[in-house]
Amino acid sequence: MSVATPQGFVAAGVAAGIKGDDALDLAIVAAVEPAVGAAVFTVNRAAAAPVVLSRRHLAAGHVFKAVVLNSGCANAATGPAGDAAALATLSAAAAHLGCHATEILVASTGTIGTALPIDKVLAGLGLATARLGSGLSSGRSAAEAIMTTDTVPKETVVRQDGFVVGGMAKGAGMVRPDMATMLAVLTTDAVVEAADMQAALETAVDESFHALNIDGCPSTNDAVFAMASGASGVRPSQSQLAEALGAACRDLAAQLAADAEGASRVVVIEVTGAPDAATARRVGRHIADSGLVRASFYGGDPNWGRVIGALGAGPVDFDPRVVAVAYAGVTVAAEGVAVPVDESALLATLAGGDFTLSVSIGDGPGAAAVLTTDLTPEYVRFNGERS
Amino acid sequence: MSVATPQGFVAAGVAAGIKGDDALDLAIVAAVEPAVGAAVFTVNRAAAAPVVLSRRHLAAGHVFKAVVLNSGCANAATGPAGDAAALATLSAAAAHLGCHATEILVASTGTIGTALPIDKVLAGLGLATARLGSGLSSGRSAAEAIMTTDTVPKETVVRQDGFVVGGMAKGAGMVRPDMATMLAVLTTDAVVEAADMQAALETAVDESFHALNIDGCPSTNDAVFAMASGASGVRPSQSQLAEALGAACRDLAAQLAADAEGASRVVVIEVTGAPDAATARRVGRHIADSGLVRASFYGGDPNWGRVIGALGAGPVDFDPRVVAVAYAGVTVAAEGVAVPVDESALLATLAGGDFTLSVSIGDGPGAAAVLTTDLTPEYVRFNGERS
Repeated sequence: MSVATPQGFVAAGVAAGIKGDDALDLAIVAAVEPAVGAAVFTVNRAAAAPVVLSRRHLAAGHVFKAVVLNSGCANAATGPAGDAAALATLSAAAAHLGCHATEILVASTGTIGTALPIDKVLAGLGLATARLGSGLSSGRSAAEAIMTTDTVPKETVVRQDGFVVGGMAKGAGMVRPDMATMLAVLTTDAVVEAADMQAALETAVDESFHALNIDGCPSTNDAVFAMASGASGVRPSQSQLAEALGAACRDLAAQLAADAEGASRVVVIEVTGAPDAATARRVGRHIADSGLVRASFYGGDPNWGRVIGALGAGPVDFDPRVVAVAYAGVTVAAEGVAVPVDESALLATLAGGDFTLSVSIGDGPGAAAVLTTDLTPEYVRFNGERS
Repeated sequence: MSVATPQGFVAAGVAAGIKGDDALDLAIVAAVEPAVGAAVFTVNRAAAAPVVLSRRHLAAGHVFKAVVLNSGCANAATGPAGDAAALATLSAAAAHLGCHATEILVASTGTIGTALPIDKVLAGLGLATARLGSGLSSGRSAAEAIMTTDTVPKETVVRQDGFVVGGMAKGAGMVRPDMATMLAVLTTDAVVEAADMQAALETAVDESFHALNIDGCPSTNDAVFAMASGASGVRPSQSQLAEALGAACRDLAAQLAADAEGASRVVVIEVTGAPDAATARRVGRHIADSGLVRASFYGGDPNWGRVIGALGAGPVDFDPRVVAVAYAGVTVAAEGVAVPVDESALLATLAGGDFTLSVSIGDGPGAAAVLTTDLTPEYVRFNGERS
């Protein structure tokens, strides 16, 4: 299972020395023949140089040869020198792969505000191009090369309706939708038009990465890229495509949550009763923004009062008198007030690890699930260290 | 220095048993003669019963006899029973003090979702009324009776232009403007009209409590009350009044920050170059919302990249290429990129405790300072515990 599994794609990851040790830090995911591309980028106003460039390439055309990604340096807040470094990366990759620079997409992840060591990137690009392959180990090396504080690589493959979607992702902290500090590359051998690919990707991202909120911090570098080679000869319906991309993205998002910095458990926040799904998702994401709520997850404490407090401080209007809250299926509040529960049994359940927090805010049809993790002392220690 | 220091006010704090031990938990701040009142309340949609009632009383009239406050129970998310408990508190206080129930303001702070033990409150009210006094110890007992996780009471007195402002406050976690989990009562012996009092209080609160963001969590119960007895016979100008109230509020806000749950240092975020002061304050508050930035404060790490990332994810548009960032007066980034610094000297400076983070986002005239604290493992442990 790898980003190189769908027909028509190759990948490689190498140690270019950006991280300053022998760790893999430069990845290429390339289409054998030019592929249809789509992407979703961070909305952060301080978007990194590679985001600005890739966005421009997506606006100019929809046929792409490769995505080049590095870890170890975000190339964000690096000014004109950063723009030049991203451009040099593109140009060199295009020369190696025999295509126009505008057919390359580029992404960086790592520390903000430090210069990209362009000489190392250029040397690494030659090495990576030479190693491009379609085997599992090629895809795995690419997935490893985009890791920052991730402890494991994240990969996925979805086989459906005669075509295949492969994917890889990274992201362990600074993870919040629109986008998170995360990068993902999806590949498929389906036959797809560019506009359909973009629409399907946006739907898939909404339901997966945009439904993930680790620490409320959207980064400067986030991007999800997708490329379709058409090599399977299968032309899926729009819903088939969105479903397959969605399944791949949800799998990767779940892997991101499970590997979040310092987290000891993953919590699914299920919101129901909203006017529509988008509103439900906003409510869920807002609850996950609350450090107080996420600290109570750490303690396995069904502190629904904090959930109500977070709801009330959020962007969505609701009637506090109809709110219901359940932890792991056990209702602790209904119609806005406490419900008697077997506390010791519930605490024992919550002591066990991952759980679901269910919040109903009315009788509307809108529902959504948002993934988050607990806020732990380890997260603070980890992010308090000088990086 | 106490809320009972201005002429015409008395106060008391007693142990009513709401907290379940001998701790003080019920406070009255009363005007000897009916006083002009003003207040600012939380914008949390799940506002607690006492907030709803006090808001109603403020809307109906501007002459008040007392503010009654309890700790140990927020009386929030308590439904119709909570409304009845708040109303019973008011009525009993009015009977003891010989006034209309509408002349009483009421506030609660503590755990959300638990019922107010009204029998204990009613018994405590009798005791507190009997103990009302103008001495320092009376004011101090009231300030102690509103403490929750506060480790010290917060009191202030400002003497200016012939009149006096006294104040007390509480708030140690869930502290973020609009409002924070905080309560404050201000008293003054100035001669003031109700509308002027409300306007001056709003100005004072904007510059103090609304410029405080501990953990991004605005609570269900926050309120700042002010009462003017007129007993000094001095009628200050509007600017004199706003200045004195502002000084009192800023002093109390600084005390809140210094006593924030688990915090190891107070950080002043100075924002300059914004179009106006309100925008500068929004930017500063947003930076303080970032757990990643506040974790870097904990480590004494001048991680300005996270500041840029937080800025970019915030509500205010700006040009990343003009941003400058300084820690403790040492510029680490200018025109959006890194500036060479003596790192070891800066780290040594930041290791020392409180510091100022300065962020310039343009060349506008707007500036504001926002108080926050570091995010520490202790905060998470504290708030992860079952309360």
